[in-house]
Amino acid sequence: MSEFYHVVLLKLGAGADQAYHDKVNDYCRQIRASVDGVLSYDYEANTASRAKGFSHAVVARFVDEAAHDAYQTCPLHVDMKNFMAPMIEELVVLDCVTGAAA
Amino acid sequence: MSEFYHVVLLKLGAGADQAYHDKVNDYCRQIRASVDGVLSYDYEANTASRAKGFSHAVVARFVDEAAHDAYQTCPLHVDMKNFMAPMIEELVVLDCVTGAAA
Repeated sequence: MSEFYHVVLLKLGAGADQAYHDKVNDYCRQIRASVDGVLSYDYEANTASRAKGFSHAVVARFVDEAAHDAYQTCPLHVDMKNFMAPMIEELVVLDCVTGAAA
Repeated sequence: MSEFYHVVLLKLGAGADQAYHDKVNDYCRQIRASVDGVLSYDYEANTASRAKGFSHAVVARFVDEAAHDAYQTCPLHVDMKNFMAPMIEELVVLDCVTGAAA
């Protein structure tokens, strides 16, 4: 079964403390509970040795691309982005549909 | 329920043609069919506008970190890495356990 993956790798500034991480996790809980088409949605520390400074990530799976596109403009996600933005020094995004060729 | 995510973002050289992508997808099928603890394992093109040149990715989910660690050294994955390596110009990795704090 195909799914839409949306993965955002983040380099965060020194001010991203536990209160910041807790607030982001609270946004994740709200998004999981209220946004249509979310299969999973998590904010995690990156434990990879080849993380290249991307210390954290938002890892999300949606039922399809349309659900992801709707999420991008939903007020909760806009609030979350506005809260997170001041601490984000760099980001790289992966968007893809998996399983289409399986 | 927690899962272990392993996401490898890839910048590939100009020689990464369809035959290369097909061969990588064949490795994915073999890994899905034969490696213990694999929940999903896909190689996909990155459609994000903020991909920053990371045009492709391997997106994998394992039942836990131990399953991921075993995969890293299994002969099939070692073969796949050896095949892919000459075309990889840069990579960044995300490893994380999701759902632990859900």
